[in-house]
Amino acid sequence: MKISLMHGAGGEVMGEVVDLFSKITNTNAGGIGLEALDDGAVIPIGDRQVVFTTDSHVVRPLFFPGGDIGRISVCGTINDIAMMGGRPLALSCGLIIEEGFDFDTLSKIVDSMDRALSEENVSLVTGDTKVMEKGALDQIAINTAGIGVAETIVRDNGLIPGDAIIVSGTLGDHGFAVLASREEFDFADQIISDVAPLSGMVHAAMNAGTIHAMKDPTRGGFASAINEMAKKSKVMIRISEEEVPIRSSVRAASQLLGIDPLEVANEGKVVMGVPADDAETILKVLKGHRYGKDAAIIGTVQEGTGVIMETAAGGERFIETPMGDPVPRVC
Amino acid sequence: MKISLMHGAGGEVMGEVVDLFSKITNTNAGGIGLEALDDGAVIPIGDRQVVFTTDSHVVRPLFFPGGDIGRISVCGTINDIAMMGGRPLALSCGLIIEEGFDFDTLSKIVDSMDRALSEENVSLVTGDTKVMEKGALDQIAINTAGIGVAETIVRDNGLIPGDAIIVSGTLGDHGFAVLASREEFDFADQIISDVAPLSGMVHAAMNAGTIHAMKDPTRGGFASAINEMAKKSKVMIRISEEEVPIRSSVRAASQLLGIDPLEVANEGKVVMGVPADDAETILKVLKGHRYGKDAAIIGTVQEGTGVIMETAAGGERFIETPMGDPVPRVC
Repeated sequence: MKISLMHGAGGEVMGEVVDLFSKITNTNAGGIGLEALDDGAVIPIGDRQVVFTTDSHVVRPLFFPGGDIGRISVCGTINDIAMMGGRPLALSCGLIIEEGFDFDTLSKIVDSMDRALSEENVSLVTGDTKVMEKGALDQIAINTAGIGVAETIVRDNGLIPGDAIIVSGTLGDHGFAVLASREEFDFADQIISDVAPLSGMVHAAMNAGTIHAMKDPTRGGFASAINEMAKKSKVMIRISEEEVPIRSSVRAASQLLGIDPLEVANEGKVVMGVPADDAETILKVLKGHRYGKDAAIIGTVQEGTGVIMETAAGGERFIETPMGDPVPRVC
Repeated sequence: MKISLMHGAGGEVMGEVVDLFSKITNTNAGGIGLEALDDGAVIPIGDRQVVFTTDSHVVRPLFFPGGDIGRISVCGTINDIAMMGGRPLALSCGLIIEEGFDFDTLSKIVDSMDRALSEENVSLVTGDTKVMEKGALDQIAINTAGIGVAETIVRDNGLIPGDAIIVSGTLGDHGFAVLASREEFDFADQIISDVAPLSGMVHAAMNAGTIHAMKDPTRGGFASAINEMAKKSKVMIRISEEEVPIRSSVRAASQLLGIDPLEVANEGKVVMGVPADDAETILKVLKGHRYGKDAAIIGTVQEGTGVIMETAAGGERFIETPMGDPVPRVC
């Protein structure tokens, strides 16, 4: 078998690579490990719960409306720590660069990383640089790993029947911004990536109420994240299509291209399951944050299995886990 | 300015990339940060000192005598943690794979990672996989980051006049093993990479005596590591050429190719500065370990600056920091 683009696309197919790692002898250092396939690992150190996570970034183009590979490489890891309930402390940066890459472009990428780090007061404490010969790598790839500390750990498998499902804003912005800038569609300048560091907003929400489960809908989009949450929590989720926030520009692009906005990556959104009684309070906190203005309660958790969309027309359909994100190298 | 291969080769030139990161606002989370340019960062969490480090690996060929990219990606990070005095707890793994890469080869790489992890009882707790289109990446790149806990932090800048300099074994094995297997020289099967996880051996040495400074001589080899230790410690180091352990096969290859064995990477060696009174005891512990059989006391620390080699012929020459490792993509 050969590796295909879908093996890196965050959906069903990626599971084949994940399965390879099931033969690793030690996948857990006493907390939450690789076998949980959550957004990050948790390791008890002394009396603290340390959250540890990593992501590599190969997005193209390197600069797109609303962001760039530097911002996304910082936000991706900060957000994975936040999704576990952690407060990010420090990131590492592993650069792999193609020979001949422009130094000024690298400098701009580092500036952008710095701005994203500074937004959340996170340090970049350690790094590594490798260079590959011209033609051996398309420009640059950036890995970040990160550590944080969680007072309250939040999982992606904690949904309970009766919970409300909240999304922190419009879905599909990042995937379509990348796609549009790559293809130079006319609507390219109307769709802006949502890439943002969410730790501040997430902890404001955690202070306002209880969060039973949380995940950021990155590769494979909302469809992938919500199915994973439902499956791991052993519940059914009903989503109301009318309540799902999607920008009209994204909707137009999705119809033009035949790509479901629920299946493409977001880089500045969170999906939460919260007790119904806390939903309005948490929603208000999210809406008061710069990255949560379009937050909405979009569904409910019930007994059962699967994710059902109640359509605007009054019908019902399943939201399935996509095979993989329809946009290659979206992050 | 354009990025050159030397920007990733661990010597003088790599400093230009490192300098770019000096504009990062926060480089330190309260312990040892990026600005120290040590083998890893240290972050105080609760009452513990957490060591955090990262390395990406792009070595070619993927499999070479004595090791492979999987083993090196685990050992590189375990060793960076050990060089700070830390006991490694957990690693992350960020895979970037070229479309079309063979699944069985990936499986062998994961097996090799598992064996190296198991040797030191370290867990692989979190990961990420990205796939790039065919032609956008030469086969595979593997990043690992790691966290450990240090009871005693060891720096690379703690040498004191009077210290003895110890190396844990023969120098240049990894660089020449990679080079030989790449070029298919006749002596390829006589030179075996030293790639190995050193945490167990290093902690046995730490238990046996005091270690003032420690570094693993990877890219840029012993010449780069010893100069960095001397410069940061503000001392002069005298090395006795006759005492430096180099395999005869490595010496032969180095003469044939005109490459200094002190400038190529080692992946299973440590350079230590220890009080003269502890040197024999620590040496004995190293020699008793499977990865330290050829350990030797090779020099002394004095007041002054620079690294001087007392040659076998009775002369003296400087050991200079190389511009970069002469073997591209050695790790």
